[in-house]
Amino acid sequence: MPLPLNPDMARTFPPPVMEARRWLDGVTFPPDRPLINVSQAAPMEPPPEGLRQALAEAAINDPAAHLYGPVLGLPALRAEVAAQWSAAYGGEIAAAEVAITQGCNQAFSAVMATIARAGDEVILPTPWYFNHKMWLDMQGIAAVPLPTGPGLIPEAEATARLVTERTRAIVLVTPNNPGGVEYPAATLRAFYELAQARGIALILDETYRDFDSRAGAPHDLFADPDWRGTLVHLYSFSKAYRLTGHRVGAIVADRARLAEVEKFLDTVAICPSQLGQIGALWGMRNLGQWVAGERAEILARRAAMTAGIARLEGWRLLGCGAFFAYVEHPCPVAAPELAQRLVREAGVLLLPGTMFMPEGDPAGARQLRIAFANVGVAGVDALIDRLAAFRA
Amino acid sequence: MPLPLNPDMARTFPPPVMEARRWLDGVTFPPDRPLINVSQAAPMEPPPEGLRQALAEAAINDPAAHLYGPVLGLPALRAEVAAQWSAAYGGEIAAAEVAITQGCNQAFSAVMATIARAGDEVILPTPWYFNHKMWLDMQGIAAVPLPTGPGLIPEAEATARLVTERTRAIVLVTPNNPGGVEYPAATLRAFYELAQARGIALILDETYRDFDSRAGAPHDLFADPDWRGTLVHLYSFSKAYRLTGHRVGAIVADRARLAEVEKFLDTVAICPSQLGQIGALWGMRNLGQWVAGERAEILARRAAMTAGIARLEGWRLLGCGAFFAYVEHPCPVAAPELAQRLVREAGVLLLPGTMFMPEGDPAGARQLRIAFANVGVAGVDALIDRLAAFRA
Repeated sequence: MPLPLNPDMARTFPPPVMEARRWLDGVTFPPDRPLINVSQAAPMEPPPEGLRQALAEAAINDPAAHLYGPVLGLPALRAEVAAQWSAAYGGEIAAAEVAITQGCNQAFSAVMATIARAGDEVILPTPWYFNHKMWLDMQGIAAVPLPTGPGLIPEAEATARLVTERTRAIVLVTPNNPGGVEYPAATLRAFYELAQARGIALILDETYRDFDSRAGAPHDLFADPDWRGTLVHLYSFSKAYRLTGHRVGAIVADRARLAEVEKFLDTVAICPSQLGQIGALWGMRNLGQWVAGERAEILARRAAMTAGIARLEGWRLLGCGAFFAYVEHPCPVAAPELAQRLVREAGVLLLPGTMFMPEGDPAGARQLRIAFANVGVAGVDALIDRLAAFRA
Repeated sequence: MPLPLNPDMARTFPPPVMEARRWLDGVTFPPDRPLINVSQAAPMEPPPEGLRQALAEAAINDPAAHLYGPVLGLPALRAEVAAQWSAAYGGEIAAAEVAITQGCNQAFSAVMATIARAGDEVILPTPWYFNHKMWLDMQGIAAVPLPTGPGLIPEAEATARLVTERTRAIVLVTPNNPGGVEYPAATLRAFYELAQARGIALILDETYRDFDSRAGAPHDLFADPDWRGTLVHLYSFSKAYRLTGHRVGAIVADRARLAEVEKFLDTVAICPSQLGQIGALWGMRNLGQWVAGERAEILARRAAMTAGIARLEGWRLLGCGAFFAYVEHPCPVAAPELAQRLVREAGVLLLPGTMFMPEGDPAGARQLRIAFANVGVAGVDALIDRLAAFRA
């Protein structure tokens, strides 16, 4: 007799990054052509030494680093986010309106668990971030795809027609994963007003905010004191401070929403890793200048990527920014097969667009995501050379 | 217009431990009568120095400690659990049948997400562990209470009558939280056979296994090669190695089940804290002798607790073991009020039985949970003295 299995979970697709890792099984890469892994948005270097020292110091001398902390996170870290965000966005965010989570994926699932349940609908622009889609699938919530046009920018006007009485939220990721594109402030404002008018939540995932190429605040939504009725903001400490292995993210939301988030986090997390939070706080207090340098380096890689795709015949850059280039390839094979062949024949690991598109959408087969932040400018050039030499 | 709120989440009660922490707000405790906090099962001391050194060393010198790891956990830690569990339980558990999670609460929610969805039923003996109840509530799954008799031991025979076509699992916690009681091997065998016969899952949460007072394996279920079709085992590294603030737990289950668990964990966690896993692995490899000493100490506290309750007039010990005493009090006030008065009038923080019982069950008002592992033998004696002096 087979063990009971939740059919919503069975229907959910397996983790794309883990699937892609399995493509490497049994493949060897010669020393003169090592693997170029642009599959995951993960810094490959450890955090700067000061941060590592701070973690080591806490591990040895701070007993609280090993004990349970508050469910919604360390008060000092919540206060730091509130202060820095208030200044950056020109709004007023209180420490009590910030929650710390075990990474930004958990921030999303915690928030969504407070908003929607089976039978509800949530609007996601396509290409979408696969973990958002997975959470909705496993909860029995319908992910309503919102096709984006040229430049991968979603349009609020078109979105209005997708809102039904079952719609609970619109989710925007900016700078976008996988598309790389930075949404204009006017776009965010239009979505905010739509959400406000229809009484649904606008969830803004700004995981890559530290690498936005634009100066100043990317939007002014927090300047509206009514943001609490509509806006939920998500963030990750993983990228700016290279803390992916520590799992620290954040939510900014209305206090009443956070009281619901607290139930979820108590049950699924109890508290975020204390050392991870200590590292994030140390980073926020000490690494502002360093992160600015990181951003400049990422923008240099982005420029190399943009120039590189331009010299590939038939390839088209659909979006580029944050840690990602999202491209259309000219090869006569579908993206999933192409991606696996690129591993074996070009020593390149990237993800096919099908992992970011609704099942059956033909566009996914022509698209690829390249997480270029993992390799330096020289690495980007090497990647382009290999793609140029590849014959499908 | 109020923001959308998932009604299942709204119905879920708030985290009891956080609620109890708020009872401390504004209360001062004189130096000669400091707070005795027996509300949470949390070691108050940091891990031994060797483990702290191992964490510090990894933070500084191991780049992988800061990077994403596999969703299901570090292969070396999975292999260590598999090897030690196989030996301890006299069964065969492969590394691929072990998953590492961000704490044991997450292990429970991940497993349950693969088994049940809204409308399904899951059987929980009462008093129950509140986070299990909370997860079921927020998912719209019915928690079917299974009253336990004397000694707080549930009976498989009575349980058979509660199984319906919607039942997906029975959850047993042994040694029990909050009841403290260690379930006899024959009880577990009877539940296993019931679950097997009815095609439902038996989830065994053995978070407190390292503090079981009995010698040898607490059950022989892993010795049955068919365990994979019925049994799911949960564990926490928090208690044995004092790693509560690092959030590391484990699941032992069939590979097909873990493939589903991987979807959940990818979406909610991406991976467990790498440093936490490094600490857990170091503990498993180096702290066997030390944990044996910890167990002896906990058993001494348990003996002090048992003797102490016996000298309190009208108090009755319903269960004692693991980190907990579960008691019936003789006071003419209900447990929630009693617990809050004990904070102010006796400097004692413990949890009322209502937090562990179905709403409206009158037994909860007469019961209290005392997490005695947090205080030494002298602390247990001081606690008993304060309870003896208290007049409701």
